[in-house]
Amino acid sequence: MKIYNTLSKSKEDFKTITPNEVRMYVCGVTVYMPPHLGHARTYVAYDVIKEYLEFKGYKVFYVRNITDAGSIVGDADQGEDKIQLKANEMHVHPMELVDMNIRAMWYYLDSLRCARPNISPRATGHILDIITAVQKMIDSGFAYELDGDVYCDVTKIKNYGILSGNTLDALNAGARIEVKSGKHSPYDFTVWKKAQDKSVLRWPSPWGEGYPGWHIECTVMSTKYLGSHFDIHGGGRDLAFPHHENEIAQSQALGCGMPANYWVHTGMLLAQDGSKMSKSAGNFVTIEDAMQKWGARSLRWFFVSGHYNSPIKYGDDVMAASNAGLERIDNFLFNLQNNVGNTHNATLSANLDTLKDRFVAEMDDDFNTPNAISAIFDFIKEANQSITNHEFDKANQDEILDFFKEINKIFKCFDTLENKQADNRQEIVQKLIDERNAYRKVKDFAKADEIKAKILAMNVEILDNKDGTTTFRLK
Amino acid sequence: MKIYNTLSKSKEDFKTITPNEVRMYVCGVTVYMPPHLGHARTYVAYDVIKEYLEFKGYKVFYVRNITDAGSIVGDADQGEDKIQLKANEMHVHPMELVDMNIRAMWYYLDSLRCARPNISPRATGHILDIITAVQKMIDSGFAYELDGDVYCDVTKIKNYGILSGNTLDALNAGARIEVKSGKHSPYDFTVWKKAQDKSVLRWPSPWGEGYPGWHIECTVMSTKYLGSHFDIHGGGRDLAFPHHENEIAQSQALGCGMPANYWVHTGMLLAQDGSKMSKSAGNFVTIEDAMQKWGARSLRWFFVSGHYNSPIKYGDDVMAASNAGLERIDNFLFNLQNNVGNTHNATLSANLDTLKDRFVAEMDDDFNTPNAISAIFDFIKEANQSITNHEFDKANQDEILDFFKEINKIFKCFDTLENKQADNRQEIVQKLIDERNAYRKVKDFAKADEIKAKILAMNVEILDNKDGTTTFRLK
Repeated sequence: MKIYNTLSKSKEDFKTITPNEVRMYVCGVTVYMPPHLGHARTYVAYDVIKEYLEFKGYKVFYVRNITDAGSIVGDADQGEDKIQLKANEMHVHPMELVDMNIRAMWYYLDSLRCARPNISPRATGHILDIITAVQKMIDSGFAYELDGDVYCDVTKIKNYGILSGNTLDALNAGARIEVKSGKHSPYDFTVWKKAQDKSVLRWPSPWGEGYPGWHIECTVMSTKYLGSHFDIHGGGRDLAFPHHENEIAQSQALGCGMPANYWVHTGMLLAQDGSKMSKSAGNFVTIEDAMQKWGARSLRWFFVSGHYNSPIKYGDDVMAASNAGLERIDNFLFNLQNNVGNTHNATLSANLDTLKDRFVAEMDDDFNTPNAISAIFDFIKEANQSITNHEFDKANQDEILDFFKEINKIFKCFDTLENKQADNRQEIVQKLIDERNAYRKVKDFAKADEIKAKILAMNVEILDNKDGTTTFRLK
Repeated sequence: MKIYNTLSKSKEDFKTITPNEVRMYVCGVTVYMPPHLGHARTYVAYDVIKEYLEFKGYKVFYVRNITDAGSIVGDADQGEDKIQLKANEMHVHPMELVDMNIRAMWYYLDSLRCARPNISPRATGHILDIITAVQKMIDSGFAYELDGDVYCDVTKIKNYGILSGNTLDALNAGARIEVKSGKHSPYDFTVWKKAQDKSVLRWPSPWGEGYPGWHIECTVMSTKYLGSHFDIHGGGRDLAFPHHENEIAQSQALGCGMPANYWVHTGMLLAQDGSKMSKSAGNFVTIEDAMQKWGARSLRWFFVSGHYNSPIKYGDDVMAASNAGLERIDNFLFNLQNNVGNTHNATLSANLDTLKDRFVAEMDDDFNTPNAISAIFDFIKEANQSITNHEFDKANQDEILDFFKEINKIFKCFDTLENKQADNRQEIVQKLIDERNAYRKVKDFAKADEIKAKILAMNVEILDNKDGTTTFRLK
């Protein structure tokens, strides 16, 4: 099995520290607002990674933090805490805002069928651990206090830039940035920040009242729950620098070396035209918008269908295409469950074996979901005729269903498997009925009858009411 | 408006500290296991209290903590942390256990339609605040360290026992208890506890590594979010002593006086025979059991129907009786929405005015829900004939629906109001169909037809299938 490691910029063989066990940390949401569609993409991607590792027989211990303090606007020295700022705007207590957004986060990620991490630690639950770590960094000479703030001295960090390529030489060659008087280097980053006068989010510390810098919380929480050396550290591509680079620096400052073996990053979610989604550009889509329009299942399927490592473009066209694909699988699975015949189909069995091999080979190659899904579509294309014609027996049915149930623990989109009368049959029939009604309205009865035949073939009773409406009953 | 105050052992006029605003703290769940049925009872009761206060025009700020550290088995000096103990048993990290049980807690309380508190602070998020408070208690002479533990010295507390009646004289008159050598009084209670060797739940402190005592977290979190003097402090009756008594002692030790004006306690949930529910007695019922058997709506209605201050007995008989009452309201509201006629019914209007007055008078009297609900049943009894006979007009319909919608913001059980085809019609019809099938099976066709007439009157189409099963379609 191979995983692309941002650290080496190459696909590497995956070897765990402890045999058969994977310890994985993923940077979580800053809960100053509900999660956005990019978060949904990222956490569905890690859910697939986690589930595939379990499919491969690993025991996965998955920690994803919740940043409920310490995320500073623009990650700047003088910026404000995002949560404090948003709470001020909304005239609520910062912790009230945090509770609302944690609730929203779980609502959306649960709806998208992401398994909960084993532990979801909150920054505010680890302030003492953070203060202990900051003090240790000061004691070992890697950090210094300046007027109530504490900075990590990047000039002391060997190999700074090892993950992102942003070495101090490279950074210094860039634009000049304003340096706070007294900082050793303009790239020294905050590990503890002095509280502003009006800040409610503040804790006593050896350096006065303040709050943690953004990067230190992930160093503290990842190593607290996974040990100082774990397998996978993940997050969105935009976190590689400065966040993950600074985590690596902090671990070095704490005498622990490289914290994780594999640094995994998910590609960004873009608007359909390839531009960055942003509120100012007016192309920002919330998870709520997308779920209302397409449903959580279709949204998950769209995310699953893209390679986690690549940027993906979200829009009506790609969603419709992705949905059409899911519907093909739905119909296949529906027919597979309802059309069983009496003759064993050896070709179908052989094709299933091919699918199994291809699926694992593709997923083993850096979780290549789009290629794995292509293999599924190739199998369905070959199988569809036999399935429609009842040219398969119970043994064929069982082995195919078993495999789809197995991979559905990873993809979690094939609702048709759970029950012959799954909700999605309801959806499919409703769509067909709407289509038929449209034809009836324009008096194209030939087309309308064609669709009616399709509906009846799905084991559905159509009830045409006197008032012109149509209802139906699944049998 | 009057509220029973455990502090004065009498119903008192309710006066808030800030006009039109209520600040309320309720002791939350210790998340070492999923919440039990007693928790469900308690938090539904406080939900009704909160919603009624809002009905009366108060702005309510509601804080309910989550105890994710520091709850010691038997509240003893030498006991173990319940979460640590259970985590050891289950071979999981204590924080993994905590995350699972917090999730379960929200699942059940959301299902029971309890509004989320404004803030649900966790003990582990307030360790520094707790250490600061303990240090302050030591500095002012109200607490002392003993071998890494810190105790509150109850002999220094004026009026110890003011809430529960457990004064030191009264306690000393009781059974002799074993005293840890060096404690000033056997009733001195832990505010900081030295970590056991194997404990993962531990934080550095001026007294060595340890964790907070159970009572101190509530003092710290209530006053952090509500100020040192707030309106209502609530919890289950069993928390009055020692938990709330010790909170009052701690506030005094911190120089803040009585923290809350009104100390409100909910009665215990008992088994149907009046005995205490316990796992050892084998009469322990989980929320899951009860919800599966009766549904979340019926369970909430059962809790709402009892007076919060009294013990209630849970069992099949009382649940069936409570459900029958809810069904009467369902049927009334269903008919009200479907039978509207053309003649204004002045008696109905007058009766509604009586109901409104009685409802408010009863709820104003220490949230007397059983009497308020009796008033509703009296109204329905008077109104039913007119409603069945279509002897009311749109104006009657509107004013009655408006009132029931208003009070449903408190009770949250009248689903029939939301939609004429609410799920509960589905439930009611299914029950009637089951009943009819039972009569058909024993060939009592007269009874079966009687029920069929009832079903048809509910605007339902019955579909008797060839295979003997019956389905139905709401029209």
